[in-house]
Amino acid sequence: MHTPSNSAPAQVRAQLLQKLSEVLPADAIIDETEAQRPFECDALTLYRELPLLVVLPSSVEQVQQILQICQALSVPVVPRGSGTGLCAGSMPHPEGIVLGLSKLNRIIEIDALACTARVQPGVSNLSISQAAKAFGLYYAPDPSSQIACSIGGNIAENSGGVHCLKYGLTVHNVLSLEVLSVTGEPMTLGGQGLDSPGFDLLAPLIGSEGLLAVVTEITVKLLPIPELARVIMAGFDSVDNAGNAVSDIIGAGIIPAGLELMDALAIQAAEDFVHAGYPRDAAALLLCEVDGTVEEVETHIARVNQLFEAAGATTIRVSQSETERELLWRGRKSAFPAVGRLAPDYYCMDGTIPRGQVAYVLGEIARLGAEYGLRVANVFHAGDGNLHPLILFDAGDPNDIRKAEEFGAKILELSVAVGGCITGEHGVGLEKLGQMPSQFSEQELLQFEEIKAAFDPQLMLNPGKGIPILKRCQEYRALPARHGHMHGGES
Amino acid sequence: MHTPSNSAPAQVRAQLLQKLSEVLPADAIIDETEAQRPFECDALTLYRELPLLVVLPSSVEQVQQILQICQALSVPVVPRGSGTGLCAGSMPHPEGIVLGLSKLNRIIEIDALACTARVQPGVSNLSISQAAKAFGLYYAPDPSSQIACSIGGNIAENSGGVHCLKYGLTVHNVLSLEVLSVTGEPMTLGGQGLDSPGFDLLAPLIGSEGLLAVVTEITVKLLPIPELARVIMAGFDSVDNAGNAVSDIIGAGIIPAGLELMDALAIQAAEDFVHAGYPRDAAALLLCEVDGTVEEVETHIARVNQLFEAAGATTIRVSQSETERELLWRGRKSAFPAVGRLAPDYYCMDGTIPRGQVAYVLGEIARLGAEYGLRVANVFHAGDGNLHPLILFDAGDPNDIRKAEEFGAKILELSVAVGGCITGEHGVGLEKLGQMPSQFSEQELLQFEEIKAAFDPQLMLNPGKGIPILKRCQEYRALPARHGHMHGGES
Repeated sequence: MHTPSNSAPAQVRAQLLQKLSEVLPADAIIDETEAQRPFECDALTLYRELPLLVVLPSSVEQVQQILQICQALSVPVVPRGSGTGLCAGSMPHPEGIVLGLSKLNRIIEIDALACTARVQPGVSNLSISQAAKAFGLYYAPDPSSQIACSIGGNIAENSGGVHCLKYGLTVHNVLSLEVLSVTGEPMTLGGQGLDSPGFDLLAPLIGSEGLLAVVTEITVKLLPIPELARVIMAGFDSVDNAGNAVSDIIGAGIIPAGLELMDALAIQAAEDFVHAGYPRDAAALLLCEVDGTVEEVETHIARVNQLFEAAGATTIRVSQSETERELLWRGRKSAFPAVGRLAPDYYCMDGTIPRGQVAYVLGEIARLGAEYGLRVANVFHAGDGNLHPLILFDAGDPNDIRKAEEFGAKILELSVAVGGCITGEHGVGLEKLGQMPSQFSEQELLQFEEIKAAFDPQLMLNPGKGIPILKRCQEYRALPARHGHMHGGES
Repeated sequence: MHTPSNSAPAQVRAQLLQKLSEVLPADAIIDETEAQRPFECDALTLYRELPLLVVLPSSVEQVQQILQICQALSVPVVPRGSGTGLCAGSMPHPEGIVLGLSKLNRIIEIDALACTARVQPGVSNLSISQAAKAFGLYYAPDPSSQIACSIGGNIAENSGGVHCLKYGLTVHNVLSLEVLSVTGEPMTLGGQGLDSPGFDLLAPLIGSEGLLAVVTEITVKLLPIPELARVIMAGFDSVDNAGNAVSDIIGAGIIPAGLELMDALAIQAAEDFVHAGYPRDAAALLLCEVDGTVEEVETHIARVNQLFEAAGATTIRVSQSETERELLWRGRKSAFPAVGRLAPDYYCMDGTIPRGQVAYVLGEIARLGAEYGLRVANVFHAGDGNLHPLILFDAGDPNDIRKAEEFGAKILELSVAVGGCITGEHGVGLEKLGQMPSQFSEQELLQFEEIKAAFDPQLMLNPGKGIPILKRCQEYRALPARHGHMHGGES
């Protein structure tokens, strides 16, 4: 939807290519437009751009050299993992390079005693748990894209997943990071202990969308694989009843390993796609996983069953085997592609709301959907109030794009209005820059800007993403306009 | 030990007094030297200083006005809670004010459904749990000083306590902060959800020792009071055996609510002080608390018992009532004053080490103690590797002070050398500035400095604490020298 600007002086590009060729093998530099196409967007394909160059280093030393070269030539750097992000956080900068970290894909060490893994940023989320399995351990955060998404990308967006209700987001499961500053200087953030002296720079790095430093190594916490995990699936004849059941579970002091809500359209799409045995006629479905010792799981299953029945569940099914448990989750984890089959395109939102507002917000989303004439399927990390409305539209129709984007923005603003926020786990990227001022005061936005400058004073790391730049640099004042332009649907 | 410099121009002081009198009642300004004495140090009484003035505002608006006045007159501001800190983090600045927040002591709201409490910074740690008790809830972090220490001070130092092994430090139990910037601008950091957009500024604020902003309101997480908690006390005839028992418990996948180690000198001192029934002849004592449902506690008690026996415990006792459980903890929580009775003064260190290094480090501490001719009692959050060696000395003897400080510094450097860090929960303050370069690279220290500048570019908030200032300001280059001077024992 966006033609590359190619406005960077050809001279800088030639110099850059020359310098990079001195430190990288030829196959680590992607120069041709067609070969760059796979890198022009992340999974939010509405936003596309071509970079000057894509580079694919295979060592930390090469990453350092690339940063030094870009620093010397004032070329912006956009770090990228596997490109599964959902907020255009790794969309290329037209005058910058894409720094693809997929070749840094080694699991360096698993320390079974300390329950930690040291990995490079290009390692996929799932492969950490696969490697840890031999030690009876696993890595808890599990984005639906975990088979493909990189741990580096998880750091960039502070990813969650269906199990983050009990086990936390990426930030709660990372102990330390080795990073390179924008000038290529190494730093260690965090450590093995609960606390460390100095300011906590680990937490702000996580979720910073590549704006503060380039992550070259990650030490994650591993957890013992629970003795048992089971899923209770319950169908309801109204979203209200399902929403109340969620409150009842949390109110009873039970923190399930996962607690997910799907509405009718999502249920039907998922069932058609994976045949998980979902109740096709239900208005809402809850999937509640409990894990722990056999005794804990049995106690909680019995209690959740009672609560679901009391809340008016029309069907209840408890997984009787690992295969059945995985099948029940497969429907949920495939909900995005499943819903994707219902229309040419879908736009996934990511607002977070207080749990008590579920019924009201889903009602408002339905009302807005009717107003815009667009269908919407709701998939929802209900336990922690993280909405994922999937707006169905046709990207071939500029009017449909405009409507989908407006509808999406209204959902985010609604989330803020009820006391929530504009992103639970997908990040701000380029997509939600326009909504940041509805979430934060000018002072708070200025403070973000000062933090950016504290790491990257020249704004060379992933500029124009994550935080709106209000005052620092005339060049970046243009950004909201550019964003508005893209939102206008020029594609 | 340190006479106030009184080098600030009398003119600034007069102006300051004039301006502050316009916004504060007379009893909120402490002007007289003798009345300022209670504020000249925190609980690390080795470091003392008198401020220009002490102010005790009773509203957020007054705090804002004070900050604006200090900003206009370029007067440094040292925030202070209850003064129970252990690193001279709230020691006054001779040319600045002490901003005492003890009158901001309201519990604003307890939301039993959301399991949160909104409180002002001067509220004591314990009184949050006391207020939450009616709802079956409590606030988990429990520093030994919890009866006195303020939640604002806990935020400043990211305090822990005996239960932080299972429930985390302050940073893991705070959802959001209302703060005022150094110029008095309000900001909200964090929120109710698991994640929020923008950089995570909540985590770096926690543990920032008043260097980044002034906290005016805190929303903490509350947890359901566990159905049951019991303590297993085990005596051992060697520190090695006790250390191995700690590894065995963690290695068995059990995360106790608390796991504390005391050595012979600490055991005897505590027993003499509170008569908890500790085995007076043991070389080491472990206190292991397990909590949860009745079934969980019983299962874990049985398993810990087995592990203690296998590790060679000479005595084992399990609490049979809440009274007995509290008594067993009282000995541990009173260990500092108990050890304090053995000598005129004690100096409490706070290094953190990997659990596997316990026996080696305790051996080295004993060796160093013999070398310096100073007794040392060890109290130890064993589960998370957080040492508290208490060095006994006589502050009336300058040579003893010098030896105690040297000995302490060696323990911290030893902690770093074995892969640990210089502070687990007490903070850096003024005390450990000199050890920061043994922990961090120059690049990392510079990054801290940039973060400081991103919040407080003029270095007006608690200057000279927490992080060594390497380059930013000539004035502060003098600090390491001043610190060295004090370490020289001029008292």
